[in-house]
Amino acid sequence: MDLKEFEFIAKIRRAIGPDARVSLGIGDDAAWIGAPGNGLLVTVDMLLEGVHFDLARSSARQVGAKAMRVNLSDIAAMAGEPLAAVIAVGLPSSTRRAADGAGTADLAEQLFVGLKDAADEFGVAIIGGDTNRSAGGLVISVTLLGTPSAKGPVLRSGARPGDALCVTGKLGYSLEGRHLDFTPRVREAKLLHENYELHAMLDVSDGLASDLFHLTEESGVGAIVDAESIPIYAAALTDDRSPLDHALNDGEDFELLFTLPEGEAARLISEQPLRSLGVEVTRVGAMTEERETWLRSTTGIVPFPRGGFRHEWS
Amino acid sequence: MDLKEFEFIAKIRRAIGPDARVSLGIGDDAAWIGAPGNGLLVTVDMLLEGVHFDLARSSARQVGAKAMRVNLSDIAAMAGEPLAAVIAVGLPSSTRRAADGAGTADLAEQLFVGLKDAADEFGVAIIGGDTNRSAGGLVISVTLLGTPSAKGPVLRSGARPGDALCVTGKLGYSLEGRHLDFTPRVREAKLLHENYELHAMLDVSDGLASDLFHLTEESGVGAIVDAESIPIYAAALTDDRSPLDHALNDGEDFELLFTLPEGEAARLISEQPLRSLGVEVTRVGAMTEERETWLRSTTGIVPFPRGGFRHEWS
Repeated sequence: MDLKEFEFIAKIRRAIGPDARVSLGIGDDAAWIGAPGNGLLVTVDMLLEGVHFDLARSSARQVGAKAMRVNLSDIAAMAGEPLAAVIAVGLPSSTRRAADGAGTADLAEQLFVGLKDAADEFGVAIIGGDTNRSAGGLVISVTLLGTPSAKGPVLRSGARPGDALCVTGKLGYSLEGRHLDFTPRVREAKLLHENYELHAMLDVSDGLASDLFHLTEESGVGAIVDAESIPIYAAALTDDRSPLDHALNDGEDFELLFTLPEGEAARLISEQPLRSLGVEVTRVGAMTEERETWLRSTTGIVPFPRGGFRHEWS
Repeated sequence: MDLKEFEFIAKIRRAIGPDARVSLGIGDDAAWIGAPGNGLLVTVDMLLEGVHFDLARSSARQVGAKAMRVNLSDIAAMAGEPLAAVIAVGLPSSTRRAADGAGTADLAEQLFVGLKDAADEFGVAIIGGDTNRSAGGLVISVTLLGTPSAKGPVLRSGARPGDALCVTGKLGYSLEGRHLDFTPRVREAKLLHENYELHAMLDVSDGLASDLFHLTEESGVGAIVDAESIPIYAAALTDDRSPLDHALNDGEDFELLFTLPEGEAARLISEQPLRSLGVEVTRVGAMTEERETWLRSTTGIVPFPRGGFRHEWS
C-alpha cells in the first residue's frame, strides 16, 4: 500500500466524523458500537487471489481458514470474544484448478471447510453470506462480530509514557508457512486483559515497523525499542536481509503488541502466564513522552525504520 | 448462479446448524443475533466488476451508492433500522480509467463518496473498512448492521395460507437505469410494519420468479399470483420479451414482497399509506395451503415459471 492510499484512509476518517452510536470508529483493529462496557466489536478483512494468496501454493481450505483467522486476530487485538461472522465470496467462473486439484465447486466447498474449521475453533457462528461469480480470481471477505470484555476493549490509543512495550511469541519469516497457519491470540489476549492492566494493544499484521507507529500515533507518545530484545523466529530461509529486517518488516505475524505499566510488565514477564498456551511474552522496549520512535542496539540508537502503511480503515 | 451453487448454499445451511446466540441464521435477507425483541440484524453483499457492474457504463460513485443500497434493501426486508456499516474494497492496481475519467485514487474516492451519500441518506455510520489492491477488477463488499423494530423483524418464513401477497412499487426493466438508482424501501417497510400485521417479507432482488419461491419455501406454503395484477414499469425498451417476462425475471427491483391477512391487505390497499413516499402498494395474489405456486391469467392458470436461484446465504 502506498502513501496515496494512506491519505485516502485519513481522508475517510476526517469525512466520517463522530457518531453518538459509535464508541470507536475507524482507527483501531475493530470498530466498537454501543455503550462502553457492552456493545459489539466489528471488523472486516478481504483476501484477494493474486494479491494475498496464490492457489498454486495454498489450498482453498487454507485460504478460508486464514480469512477467518485474520479477523479473529483483530478481535483478539481488542481483547474481545469472537461471536459471529458473515462471509462474502467471489468464485472464479472458469474451471480453474487449485493446488489440490479442485474445480470451482470443490474450491467453494474447501474454502467453506477452512472457514468453518477456524470458526469452530473459536466458537464463531457463521450466520450469513453472499456468494458471487468473480470475473477475476477468488475473493473472500469476512466480517467478524465480537463482544468486548466486561472491562471494555483494549484500544490502540491508551499507551502512556513510561509503559513497557511487550510482544507475544516471535516475529519474522511468516512466509515460511506461518502466515497460512497461525493461531490468532484470542485466548492469550483475554488472559492478559483479565490479569494485567493493559493500556494499549494491536495485532502485528503489517510488521512491527508499521504497527508500532499505529500505537505511538494513536496514543500520542513515542517509543524506544531494544533491537536485541526482539524475539525472532529461527528461520530456514537465508537471504540478503538480516533476521532483524525480517522481524520488523515481514508482517503477518499476528502476534499481540501491547503496553502496560513497568511494574505490571515485570510481573507478567516473571509469571509468563501464556506458557500454558505455548506462548512466551517478551518486553521489547518502553513508551516515551517525546513523540519520536527509536531503535536502540549495541551499536547505537537510530530513528525506528518505518515500514509500509496499514491498509485497514479500522 | 447455477444449481450447483444453490446446492452449495443448502449444504452450508445444513453444516452450520443451530446456535443459541443466533435468533436467525442463514436463509433470510439478514441474520439476527441476540434475543428476540432486540439484538442486531447483519447482512453482507459483494459487488464485483465485470459481473455486477461495468465501469464504462456506471461511475464509481454509482457503484459505491449501489453497494450500500443493496444492503439497505436487505435491512428494509426485515423491517429493520439501518445502523452501521463496514466496507472492504479491492482496488485495481493499474491506472485504469472509469467512465468519469478517474484513475485508481479518484476511483477509490468516488466510490467512497457514493457509499457515504447512501449511508448518510439512511443514517448509517461507516465504522470501519479494509482497503486492498486487486489483481483483477474493482471489488466492494459492504456489511450492514441494523436493529430490529420493537415488534421484531419480519421473516420470510411467516406467510400463512389465506394471506394476501402484496408488492411495493413496480417491477421489471431495472436495467434501464433503476438498478443503479433505486430507493431501498427502509422507510416504507417501517411504516408498513408499524401499521399492518405483516406475516412475511423479503426484497425482490433476483426477480419475482425467484424471490416468490423463497417466501413459499421458507413458509411451507404455496401461492397463486394474478399475472394481470403485477405492476410493471412503463419501459422505453422494446425487445422480444414480454413486459411480464421482464417483471418476473429482470431482478434488481429492490421492492418489498410481503404477505398479510386479507382484511389487513384490504385496509392497506384502500389506505395506500406509502403514497406520501411516492409508492403504491399492489395486491398480486394469495398464499395457499397447497404447496404449489401458480400464475393465473385471463388465458388460464400455469405453474409459476421459476427463475434463477438466489446467491445470498442470508
